[in-house]
Amino acid sequence: MTKQLNIGLIGAGRIGRLHGEHLAQRLPEANLLAVSDIFVEAAQRAAVDFGIPAAYQDHRRILDDPAIEAVVICSSTDTHARMIIESAEAGKHIFCEKPIHLDLAEIDRALGAVKEAGVKLQVGFNRRFDPNFKRAQEVVASGQIGEPHLLRITSRDPEPPPIAYIEVSGGIFLDMTIHDFDMARFLIGDEVEEIYATGGVMVDPAIGEAGDIDTALITLRYRNGVIGSIDNSRKAVYGYDQRVEVFGSEGVVIVGNDKPNTAVVSDSTGVHGALPLFFFVERYTESYLAEMRAFIAAVQEDRTPAVTGLDGRIPVVMGYAAKKSFDERRPVQLSEIED
Amino acid sequence: MTKQLNIGLIGAGRIGRLHGEHLAQRLPEANLLAVSDIFVEAAQRAAVDFGIPAAYQDHRRILDDPAIEAVVICSSTDTHARMIIESAEAGKHIFCEKPIHLDLAEIDRALGAVKEAGVKLQVGFNRRFDPNFKRAQEVVASGQIGEPHLLRITSRDPEPPPIAYIEVSGGIFLDMTIHDFDMARFLIGDEVEEIYATGGVMVDPAIGEAGDIDTALITLRYRNGVIGSIDNSRKAVYGYDQRVEVFGSEGVVIVGNDKPNTAVVSDSTGVHGALPLFFFVERYTESYLAEMRAFIAAVQEDRTPAVTGLDGRIPVVMGYAAKKSFDERRPVQLSEIED
Amino acid sequence: MTKQLNIGLIGAGRIGRLHGEHLAQRLPEANLLAVSDIFVEAAQRAAVDFGIPAAYQDHRRILDDPAIEAVVICSSTDTHARMIIESAEAGKHIFCEKPIHLDLAEIDRALGAVKEAGVKLQVGFNRRFDPNFKRAQEVVASGQIGEPHLLRITSRDPEPPPIAYIEVSGGIFLDMTIHDFDMARFLIGDEVEEIYATGGVMVDPAIGEAGDIDTALITLRYRNGVIGSIDNSRKAVYGYDQRVEVFGSEGVVIVGNDKPNTAVVSDSTGVHGALPLFFFVERYTESYLAEMRAFIAAVQEDRTPAVTGLDGRIPVVMGYAAKKSFDERRPVQLSEIED
Amino acid sequence: MTKQLNIGLIGAGRIGRLHGEHLAQRLPEANLLAVSDIFVEAAQRAAVDFGIPAAYQDHRRILDDPAIEAVVICSSTDTHARMIIESAEAGKHIFCEKPIHLDLAEIDRALGAVKEAGVKLQVGFNRRFDPNFKRAQEVVASGQIGEPHLLRITSRDPEPPPIAYIEVSGGIFLDMTIHDFDMARFLIGDEVEEIYATGGVMVDPAIGEAGDIDTALITLRYRNGVIGSIDNSRKAVYGYDQRVEVFGSEGVVIVGNDKPNTAVVSDSTGVHGALPLFFFVERYTESYLAEMRAFIAAVQEDRTPAVTGLDGRIPVVMGYAAKKSFDERRPVQLSEIED
Repeated sequence: MTKQLNIGLIGAGRIGRLHGEHLAQRLPEANLLAVSDIFVEAAQRAAVDFGIPAAYQDHRRILDDPAIEAVVICSSTDTHARMIIESAEAGKHIFCEKPIHLDLAEIDRALGAVKEAGVKLQVGFNRRFDPNFKRAQEVVASGQIGEPHLLRITSRDPEPPPIAYIEVSGGIFLDMTIHDFDMARFLIGDEVEEIYATGGVMVDPAIGEAGDIDTALITLRYRNGVIGSIDNSRKAVYGYDQRVEVFGSEGVVIVGNDKPNTAVVSDSTGVHGALPLFFFVERYTESYLAEMRAFIAAVQEDRTPAVTGLDGRIPVVMGYAAKKSFDERRPVQLSEIED
Repeated sequence: MTKQLNIGLIGAGRIGRLHGEHLAQRLPEANLLAVSDIFVEAAQRAAVDFGIPAAYQDHRRILDDPAIEAVVICSSTDTHARMIIESAEAGKHIFCEKPIHLDLAEIDRALGAVKEAGVKLQVGFNRRFDPNFKRAQEVVASGQIGEPHLLRITSRDPEPPPIAYIEVSGGIFLDMTIHDFDMARFLIGDEVEEIYATGGVMVDPAIGEAGDIDTALITLRYRNGVIGSIDNSRKAVYGYDQRVEVFGSEGVVIVGNDKPNTAVVSDSTGVHGALPLFFFVERYTESYLAEMRAFIAAVQEDRTPAVTGLDGRIPVVMGYAAKKSFDERRPVQLSEIED
Repeated sequence: MTKQLNIGLIGAGRIGRLHGEHLAQRLPEANLLAVSDIFVEAAQRAAVDFGIPAAYQDHRRILDDPAIEAVVICSSTDTHARMIIESAEAGKHIFCEKPIHLDLAEIDRALGAVKEAGVKLQVGFNRRFDPNFKRAQEVVASGQIGEPHLLRITSRDPEPPPIAYIEVSGGIFLDMTIHDFDMARFLIGDEVEEIYATGGVMVDPAIGEAGDIDTALITLRYRNGVIGSIDNSRKAVYGYDQRVEVFGSEGVVIVGNDKPNTAVVSDSTGVHGALPLFFFVERYTESYLAEMRAFIAAVQEDRTPAVTGLDGRIPVVMGYAAKKSFDERRPVQLSEIED
Repeated sequence: MTKQLNIGLIGAGRIGRLHGEHLAQRLPEANLLAVSDIFVEAAQRAAVDFGIPAAYQDHRRILDDPAIEAVVICSSTDTHARMIIESAEAGKHIFCEKPIHLDLAEIDRALGAVKEAGVKLQVGFNRRFDPNFKRAQEVVASGQIGEPHLLRITSRDPEPPPIAYIEVSGGIFLDMTIHDFDMARFLIGDEVEEIYATGGVMVDPAIGEAGDIDTALITLRYRNGVIGSIDNSRKAVYGYDQRVEVFGSEGVVIVGNDKPNTAVVSDSTGVHGALPLFFFVERYTESYLAEMRAFIAAVQEDRTPAVTGLDGRIPVVMGYAAKKSFDERRPVQLSEIED
């Protein structure tokens, strides 16, 4: 076995605990040495639950520890860019949850620091590691369906987040669609040039009052001519709905939802199967493990991570393009955002 | 049994023969007395094949026959409006293949003649009678999925028509998407206000040279706020791909393709099932029968036909809006077309 | 077009009317000249409904008509053998509903008469013509799944017949399983040597009081070593359940039920699809048409029918073996029945 | 968190390593203190790989350790009963892989020792914890499908074990069908009274030369009248095939295979999906975790384990009944085995 990678975890909220449990208990290639959280009780709780040797309030304690080779950044979104810069300056390899930041200049500063320090950075677009989407990407990349022509992504949450969260989320395109923007790039392997976004408030008027929408339909036009469509809803009563379809000159690949079991009951009223796995924790468990395995391997084998800093930046640009398109009710070039 | 309806068939091309066979052999409520075609051999051939008593070159012979109560118009598209007017003036009830005409003024003249004559007109949007789409519409209308939020239509042909046909077709939006525009209205039960269309030439450069595109993605915004998406391709190598999905506040209904058999073979390379039924004749056989049954019943029972003249007109308006949107690369209001 | 085959229909009960409608309205290669039924009103009703020129009480009127080339026998089961003999002696080709008779000596007499007269006889095992089972048979015969090892047939009715019918039916093995015995021979293309049958009264005690069982599980051992299993129930509340599976050295083929539509609704309680088509009339419509087409073609082209007299006889032997096995609670050789 | 249960692992072969990894890394409620194997290198290898503090050749070292509260027995089958007796005498709670022993008298001695010592014993019928089968059992137990009438189990391995293994396996009924016998009891919740087994050598003549068969079909008759059927093959080229179906008065529940992904590719040759997960390690991972969680909880909460010693004994009786039935070509009562 290769030597374990010594890791520090920054942030012990929901996603931090998820990564913490995986690093401590399910990834033998990782050695989780410490966890920090500005709410020190959260760090201590995680340390006890997952058997992590050290718990701090100040993430600097992690960055200052020479034994720690890499950090996993799960702090609040607005701190990601700063944490990346500090970690890079401390010479640590970095796994950072998405998005890097909602301000492109901040993202660029962070990516600059990473480049300068020569450390590795992987951004947490975990869905790329989902066995279903991964298989779809492989089918497309293999040429099995020929040249891709059309892309369809359905991405619906089982329930909206609290309004307080909505208010600081940056809006549906930067908070929710951002994952689908990454998926759109991943599946087609090319860049989007133009975005047209429409949508409305259909789930909860309070979301509208918070200045956001809850239902959206986004059209993508790629440089290579592919056209794509993403639909989002904050509330699918039947559970987390995560499907994609790529149609090409030689065929189509479609991936559907995962279910907790395959049982099908037929009775006098119909044929009934299980609902999809409830939400991202259930659906994407394997992908969270796989992305972390990939990050550790990239560090250990000195390879470019599977999801780079640029992969973290572009979906933010796409989010702004979608927002501008929705506001101005017209298709928007991604190049307009960069200006 | 109610008295049979005496019918004359105008046009004995592919779709004319299909209706002719149904009227002569599979619809006991119909009495097909005559068939006409400007290529009189086609009329004669149909008469022999399906046992139709009379075959004419001139459709006037049908209109002049007082025994004939209703006509089924399957002549070339450019003659539909004129045939409707003549048939209405002759006091015949009318079933007319879509589209009525590609010129809105002509359509309005035809609908005016129908109104004046007080005859019934049903337009041949047969897909409404397909058991799958019909069931989807029933589910939506019943409220089972709550308020509709999103609509997705996938509509792909197995192979493009000849270039000669493409050249006179009016373009993909008026020739192919027109069926999906009807489906979009049928499923949601409300009117579309705005259309945004994008697409390209991906299947065959010759289609582009003929001034058309072969792949399209159309976004619909309804008066009631629903947003919808239609994707089209002139060539799906795996066969006719006709699926719809309506997502609402209380659930989702999805309908898929029909297949020639349910056999699934698993071998060492994978799990393999049959391709969808090849094209519209195979997939929509039942719907062609059902629409004709509905037309005959509407005449016999003096009811409004299931697909009215207005239902024939609106998808043409939508086709023009899609064309204008594609040409001008911006969302277009349907009201812009009417001006 | 080949000359139409002139046909007379003997028996105008449920299955007679079904064949009558097909012959009169959906099979242009057939010319249905007359119908007979000992209840002459039934014959007259069918004649009016389907436009059959002549209706008789006495089937001899059909046999005596020199214009009639073939008969379709749908009279009551106990008269089948006699009708076959009379029809053969009259020189008519014969399509006969199954079973030929429940007495093997009677069957042999009928088959002898057919042979002597040199006419064609097809027995109405229509399921062989079902697109699903036909495809399964083709897959097996093509060698795609290698050497067959195991067969599974599930065959369950949506509801039991009236007790009065049960009492004269010959019992579940000769009335219901007989179709599955034919399917078992058809799919494997080899003969069964030994049968073990078990079962019980689970659906309705009245069926037990009538001396029959309503639920059965039958094990088959073929000459070539294949082993098979058939399960039957007189009542599946979810509808007609007709599935088969053949497992072999290189794979497995599984066919499932047909459904009225492909609509799937997901709501907060689960994922819901349509029930199977209700019963044999709905499920096997196409197969009834196809078997009749095959019979007419066999006569017109002077070929051996797809389901021969022997194919009609062997399932009866199997039915007796199953009955004996159930009664004696031991596996029974088919050769024991012949002695 | 409840106090962790201190566990010793006896046997570090394939299944021992699987449990060892789970106990050491994925079950925080377990504290795996030691591993033993008569091949001490295997124990040492496992200790290094999974971070187990102690590795011994002699399992007595584990039984003598007062800190260890429970043992997990994964040694060779012929030693299970002895290990159970020694462990019970040492006052350890016991999880033991199936089968307990192939000699009923040995099983009874082991169960007697367990009873006398008052320790808990859970037998490793892990499939009961598979989410699919568990759901099927819940559906049946809930009454959702009414009274059960028929049971069908399909259980096929992707490839046969080595001939050397076959020779000492006790034969297909005691080695392979034994799992299905447990499943048959679990799903119906009642006892089998009579078994009829048939089968043959279809996969590999060497299996026949070793005195065993490789393909089997077993009929079960339960005390409560339910009839069931199990089919087995040692080689399904398409992978591990593990399906069950329970049919009852109010409906049917069917569970199918799990697949590595939901991707479906349609191209010009057909519609293609992934094969089932390859074999038991892939398919039943979750069930191995779940059964161990259940065992630990049963000990911690002083409850009867989910799979008792009797549940370990009865499938062995059923295996002998199947063997006797196959040898004597007749249905065999389970009571015949006990005499």
